[in-house]
Amino acid sequence: MTQKTIKVGIVGGTGYTGVELLRLLAQHPHCELRVITSRKEAGMGVAEMFPNLRGRVPLKFTEPSAAALNGCDVVFFATPNGVAMNDARALYDAGVRMIDIAADFRIRDVALWEKWYGMKHACPELVAEAVYGLPEVNREKIRNARLVANPGCYPTAVQLGFLPLVEAGIVDLEHLIADAKSGVSGAGRKAEVHTLFAEAADNFKAYSVPGHRHLPEITQGLAQIAGKPVKLVFVPHLTPMVRGIHATLYARLTGPADLQLLYEKRYVDEAFVDVMPAGSHPDTRSVRGANHCRIAVHRPQDGDTVVVLSVIDNLVKGAAGQAVQNMNIMFGMAEATGLEQIALLP
Amino acid sequence: MTQKTIKVGIVGGTGYTGVELLRLLAQHPHCELRVITSRKEAGMGVAEMFPNLRGRVPLKFTEPSAAALNGCDVVFFATPNGVAMNDARALYDAGVRMIDIAADFRIRDVALWEKWYGMKHACPELVAEAVYGLPEVNREKIRNARLVANPGCYPTAVQLGFLPLVEAGIVDLEHLIADAKSGVSGAGRKAEVHTLFAEAADNFKAYSVPGHRHLPEITQGLAQIAGKPVKLVFVPHLTPMVRGIHATLYARLTGPADLQLLYEKRYVDEAFVDVMPAGSHPDTRSVRGANHCRIAVHRPQDGDTVVVLSVIDNLVKGAAGQAVQNMNIMFGMAEATGLEQIALLP
Amino acid sequence: MTQKTIKVGIVGGTGYTGVELLRLLAQHPHCELRVITSRKEAGMGVAEMFPNLRGRVPLKFTEPSAAALNGCDVVFFATPNGVAMNDARALYDAGVRMIDIAADFRIRDVALWEKWYGMKHACPELVAEAVYGLPEVNREKIRNARLVANPGCYPTAVQLGFLPLVEAGIVDLEHLIADAKSGVSGAGRKAEVHTLFAEAADNFKAYSVPGHRHLPEITQGLAQIAGKPVKLVFVPHLTPMVRGIHATLYARLTGPADLQLLYEKRYVDEAFVDVMPAGSHPDTRSVRGANHCRIAVHRPQDGDTVVVLSVIDNLVKGAAGQAVQNMNIMFGMAEATGLEQIALLP
Amino acid sequence: MTQKTIKVGIVGGTGYTGVELLRLLAQHPHCELRVITSRKEAGMGVAEMFPNLRGRVPLKFTEPSAAALNGCDVVFFATPNGVAMNDARALYDAGVRMIDIAADFRIRDVALWEKWYGMKHACPELVAEAVYGLPEVNREKIRNARLVANPGCYPTAVQLGFLPLVEAGIVDLEHLIADAKSGVSGAGRKAEVHTLFAEAADNFKAYSVPGHRHLPEITQGLAQIAGKPVKLVFVPHLTPMVRGIHATLYARLTGPADLQLLYEKRYVDEAFVDVMPAGSHPDTRSVRGANHCRIAVHRPQDGDTVVVLSVIDNLVKGAAGQAVQNMNIMFGMAEATGLEQIALLP
Repeated sequence: MTQKTIKVGIVGGTGYTGVELLRLLAQHPHCELRVITSRKEAGMGVAEMFPNLRGRVPLKFTEPSAAALNGCDVVFFATPNGVAMNDARALYDAGVRMIDIAADFRIRDVALWEKWYGMKHACPELVAEAVYGLPEVNREKIRNARLVANPGCYPTAVQLGFLPLVEAGIVDLEHLIADAKSGVSGAGRKAEVHTLFAEAADNFKAYSVPGHRHLPEITQGLAQIAGKPVKLVFVPHLTPMVRGIHATLYARLTGPADLQLLYEKRYVDEAFVDVMPAGSHPDTRSVRGANHCRIAVHRPQDGDTVVVLSVIDNLVKGAAGQAVQNMNIMFGMAEATGLEQIALLP
Repeated sequence: MTQKTIKVGIVGGTGYTGVELLRLLAQHPHCELRVITSRKEAGMGVAEMFPNLRGRVPLKFTEPSAAALNGCDVVFFATPNGVAMNDARALYDAGVRMIDIAADFRIRDVALWEKWYGMKHACPELVAEAVYGLPEVNREKIRNARLVANPGCYPTAVQLGFLPLVEAGIVDLEHLIADAKSGVSGAGRKAEVHTLFAEAADNFKAYSVPGHRHLPEITQGLAQIAGKPVKLVFVPHLTPMVRGIHATLYARLTGPADLQLLYEKRYVDEAFVDVMPAGSHPDTRSVRGANHCRIAVHRPQDGDTVVVLSVIDNLVKGAAGQAVQNMNIMFGMAEATGLEQIALLP
Repeated sequence: MTQKTIKVGIVGGTGYTGVELLRLLAQHPHCELRVITSRKEAGMGVAEMFPNLRGRVPLKFTEPSAAALNGCDVVFFATPNGVAMNDARALYDAGVRMIDIAADFRIRDVALWEKWYGMKHACPELVAEAVYGLPEVNREKIRNARLVANPGCYPTAVQLGFLPLVEAGIVDLEHLIADAKSGVSGAGRKAEVHTLFAEAADNFKAYSVPGHRHLPEITQGLAQIAGKPVKLVFVPHLTPMVRGIHATLYARLTGPADLQLLYEKRYVDEAFVDVMPAGSHPDTRSVRGANHCRIAVHRPQDGDTVVVLSVIDNLVKGAAGQAVQNMNIMFGMAEATGLEQIALLP
Repeated sequence: MTQKTIKVGIVGGTGYTGVELLRLLAQHPHCELRVITSRKEAGMGVAEMFPNLRGRVPLKFTEPSAAALNGCDVVFFATPNGVAMNDARALYDAGVRMIDIAADFRIRDVALWEKWYGMKHACPELVAEAVYGLPEVNREKIRNARLVANPGCYPTAVQLGFLPLVEAGIVDLEHLIADAKSGVSGAGRKAEVHTLFAEAADNFKAYSVPGHRHLPEITQGLAQIAGKPVKLVFVPHLTPMVRGIHATLYARLTGPADLQLLYEKRYVDEAFVDVMPAGSHPDTRSVRGANHCRIAVHRPQDGDTVVVLSVIDNLVKGAAGQAVQNMNIMFGMAEATGLEQIALLP
C-alpha cells in the first residue's frame, strides 16, 4: 500500500508549540505542509523566525484564509486559547479534520470551561463532538474523530501517571496529589516579565496553588476512568529548564497491589509510555525532544502511599508530538510515524 | 557593653558550606577567624580557592592541629559526615564549643544513625549531649550547648514548614508528605558525574525516593514536637539551580483552623522566618544568600489538604547561616548579627 | 566626626538596577531612603514587587513628585534612557544632586548621543555639566559634581580593562577589540521575547555587531585618556546567566612592557579593581553581588597581542554599586561605605 | 542500488561523544551497531547508562575484544586522547576502517602533538596515513581514508569560520583572533570539580589563555589552506549551557572583498554549512542536536576588521555528527544520511 500524503495546515504557529509542530512535520514522511497562518507575522518566512528550520520549511506565514485551510486534510491549531473555537465550525463544515493543541475543546462541561478560562465559549456544540486526544485512553475514538482536543501538558503527565492506579481501583480517589514541575517553555512564547530569563533562572517557585486551569481537565479525565468523581490537589511549579515536565504523584493505597507489574502490564503495548525498572528515577532530559512518557512507581518504606514519577517533554508528548500522534491515528498511519526521534541527552 | 571578639576555627572548609561560612564570618563584626584546616589543601590560600574572598580572608588552609583549634572559642565542622565525631571528644574536653554542620550528631538514636549513614559512630556518648540547632525550636538549649548539631538543609525547610501544624495538632501525622526540590550545591563540591553541569542543567529528577538520610532527621524533629511518632513520605528532587530549597508540604487537616493566623502567630517573633501574605508563592531567589525561611500556607479548593510552601537557601539557613545564628545564640550576641545580608535578586 | 545621614530619592526603581540600588542602600549605614517613584506602580509596596526586600524597605512606590524629590540630598535615576533628561533641570535648579544610572548624560557630543539613542536630547545644556562617573578616572571631578552620568555596564568593564594600556600608550589605538559577554539581566526587566528564559537559556549569541550604543561611550572614554581618537570593534554577546559581564579585550602591543606590573601599579590604590595574579582567569561569579572589577592580563605565546580579561557584576559595578560608590565620593564618605558585601559564590 | 549495511563498532562510548554517536547511529538507516566496548562498564546495558536510548539500543558495553572489532567495517573511537593510538595498528592491519573522534591523529607533527598532549605517541607511523576529517576541506581524501582523524570541536567552528577568508588570501594571517565559547559538555563526562553544575552555572570564564591544545590543530589546518604559517590568538571560554560552540572570529582585511558573497559561494554546495543572511547573529540553539555550522559575516563600522560568527553543536558537527558524516563519505553513502535531524529549538 502506498501511503497517501496528508495535506496539513497550521493556524498560529509562532509559539513554541508551533515551532515544535513544524520540526516534527518537516521530518514526517507522509505530510505536506501547505499553509501556516499568523495574522501578526504574515509575510515573514517561518525560518526567519525559527532559524533551526532554515532549509527545511520554505513556507512563509500567511494571513488566515478559509480557502487555503479548506484545502487541507487536517488543520492544527497552535494558537492561544479561544482562537480555535471561532474557526472550528467553518472548517468542520468544510470537512477538514482538526487538532486543537489549545484548550478550547478539552472540557466537556462548557460552563466549567467558561469559568476557568474566563471567556464565553464560541462553539459549544462542537465540544460534545470533540474527542479528548489521549491515545492511551481514547485511541479508538480518535481514529474517526473530526475534531481532537489535544491534552494539556500537565494533564498528559499526570493522567498517564495515575492511570493504572485509577483503572485498578486501588487508591483513595478523594485525596490524589500531583506535585508537578514544568520547564519555562510551558508558559509559551509571550513577552512577560515573570518568564524572563533573569526572573526564572536560578529560581524555583510554585504558582497557581489556589487553582490552575489544568485541574478540571485532569479530574475530568481521571473521573471518566474511575467512573466516579475524583479529588486532586494539583500544585504546579516553574522550573529553571527550557523543556520538560516532572510530575510527582501521591496516592493512598486502599488495597494490596504489585505496582510494578500493574504499570508494566497497562503500558506493555504503548509505544510512547515507558515503564522504567523498579527503583528508577526518570529524568526529564531522557525525553527531551522525544514523544515518550517515562514512568517509575515507588512505595517508600513500604507504606500506604504510592509515589509515581512521570516525565514528558511538555512540547512533544505534552503538545506537538501528541498532536502528530493523534494525526497518525486519525489517518491510519503507524502511530509512531515521524515520531521516532531519540531524546537529546545531554 | 563592649562585645568580646569570638575566636573561630573551621575544620574542613573547602566545600560549599565552608566558603559560605567564610563569607558570613568575614562580614561578622565580632568574630576573628583564627584557623581553617584542610588536610588536602594545606598551604593553599583560602582566597586562591575561592576568589570571592580575595582581600577579605587572608588565611591559608592548614593541617589540622589540636593546638590551633584548642585556642578557639568555637569550632565549626564544615566537613563530610563522619569527621566531626572523631575530633569532637578532644575539643569537648578542651572546653571548645562546637557546631557540626555535618550530620554526625543530629540523630539521637545511634543505631538509626549508623543504619542511614553506613558507618559506626565514633563518639556515641556525645550524641546525647548535642543540641539540635534549630533555633526556632531549641533556642534555649542552644544558649548553653557545648556541641550543636546544625540541622540539614531539607530538614530545616521541612520542619519549619510543618512546625505550626504539628504543634497545633491539627493534621494527620501518619501521612505527611514533603516534596522537596534542591539546588545542586546541596550535593556538595565533590567531583561526581551526576552533578556535572552537563548532567544536571536543563534537567529535573527525583532521587532517593526509597529513602534519604534526611528522612529520619525530619521525623525525629517532628515527633519530638508532636510528642508521638510521625510518618512522612519524603521525595527530594535535583533542580537545575545553584542554591535554594523549595519544600512543598502536604498534610491532611483533622480539624478547623485559621491557617494564616496560626503561622503568623507562631513565627511573629522569629527574625528569620517570614510568613508571606495569604495567597503568596515564595520563590527561592527571594532568600538567595540570606538566612531567611519564607513560608506561605494554602488550602486549595477549601479541601482538607493543607499545602505549605517553604523556601530557604540551602547554604545559608540550611547550613552556614544557621550555624552562625547558632553561634550568635551560644555567645549571647544578637541573633541576627552578621546575618543581615539582603537576598540577591535577580 | 559624626556622619550626616544622606536623604535619598529614587526615580524609577522597578527594574533590576532599581532593586539592586535598593538592596545596597538598605544596607548603607548613612542613607535614608525617602522616596521612590514609579508612575506605573504607584501605591504598590516595594517589597511586594521585590520580596527579597521584605522587612528591609518599607516604602511604597509613589507618583513622581517634585516636592518629595526636592527634599532629597541626592536623587538616583534608575529609569529607562530618556527620562532623566526631562527631570534633571528642575532638580538641578532645586540644588538636588543627581546620579543618572541611564545613558542620558554620558555622551558629551549631543548629536552623537541623539544618533545612537534615536531621540532628541531634552537637556543638552546639562550634558556639559555632567561628570562621567567612573571613579578610577574621574574621582576628583565626581566629588563636586552636581550631576553624575553613571557609566554603562559594558563601558565599565571595557574601560577598566583597557585603561592601563591606553594610559601607557603601548597599544595600537586604531584596532582595539572588545569581545564582551553579558548576563541577561543586562537587558533589563522588560517584557520582551528575546530575553525570555526559553529563548536565552542554554543558548549563546552575539548581538548588535553592526553597532551597539555602548560603543561611542567606550571610545569617548578611551579617547579622552589617550588624548586622541581610538577605534574599537565591540561585539557584545548574550550569555545564559543572570548577572555578570566578562570582557575579553585584545590589543596589539606597539612596544615592550611588563604588563602585570603595569596593571598592578595602576590599580594599587583602587578598592574596587582587583588585578589577579599572573596567569589567572577571573570568573564572573567571583564578583556576583559585589562592586569589584577583577582583571587578569595575558600575552599568549609571547606574541604581540595582549589579552585582558575583565569581569564585573553588571548590576553592581556596572550600575547600582558604582552609583553608590559615586554617591559616597560626592558626599565625602569613605568610598567603600555600604559596598563591602562579599560576592556570592557559588 | 541497494545500500549495504555497515557494521559498526565503538570503542569507548560512555562519554558524551559516545551517547551522541549512539543517538545518531541508532537512527541511521544503513548502520548496524555490532559492538560497543568499555572496560569499566562492561556488562552494563547502554540504555541503563543513557536512558534516552531505552528501546533503541539493546547492546551492553563489553570488554574490548579484537575479534569483535575486527568483524566491523568501521570502528569509531569515542575515547579519551591516547587510546586510539594504541589500538589503531591492529585494526588497521585487520582492514578495519577507523574514525578517531579523539585527538591522537590530528596533528601531523608528532613532536608537536607530544608537546601539547603530554604523552609519547604510540603509533606515529599512522599519523601520516590519517586524513583530517573536515569534509569541507578534505572530502576527496576522506573517501578512501582508512583512518580519519575527526576534528576537534573548536577547530571545526574556527576553521569553517575563517576558511573563505584564508582561501581568498584577503586577511592578515599573522594576527587572527578566535574568541570561542563552549558549552560545558565540551569538557566531557568526567567527574571534575570545575565542571560541576554549582561551579559552572550562572558563571562565565575564559580558560587556557596561555595555550589550549586546539590551537596547533587550528593553525595547522589554516596554514595548509593558506600555504604558509598563520598566527592565531585563541581564547576559549566556558559557557553555562550544555551544548554549543560560538566562535567569534576577528581578522584584519588586507584588501577589498564582498564578504557575504565570498562566504555564500564558498559554501553553496555544502549541506552542513549555512551562511546566514547579511546582518545575522546565529545562536547556538539553532544547531542544537543538528550537524550544521551556521555562519554570519560582519564588517562593523565598515572598518578593516572582519567579524565572523560561527556556531556548531560541539557534540554533533563538533564530534559525533561529523564522524558520521565522515563515515557516510567513506562508505559512499549520501553525505547527509542519518544526519537530517532538525535542531531542537527552544
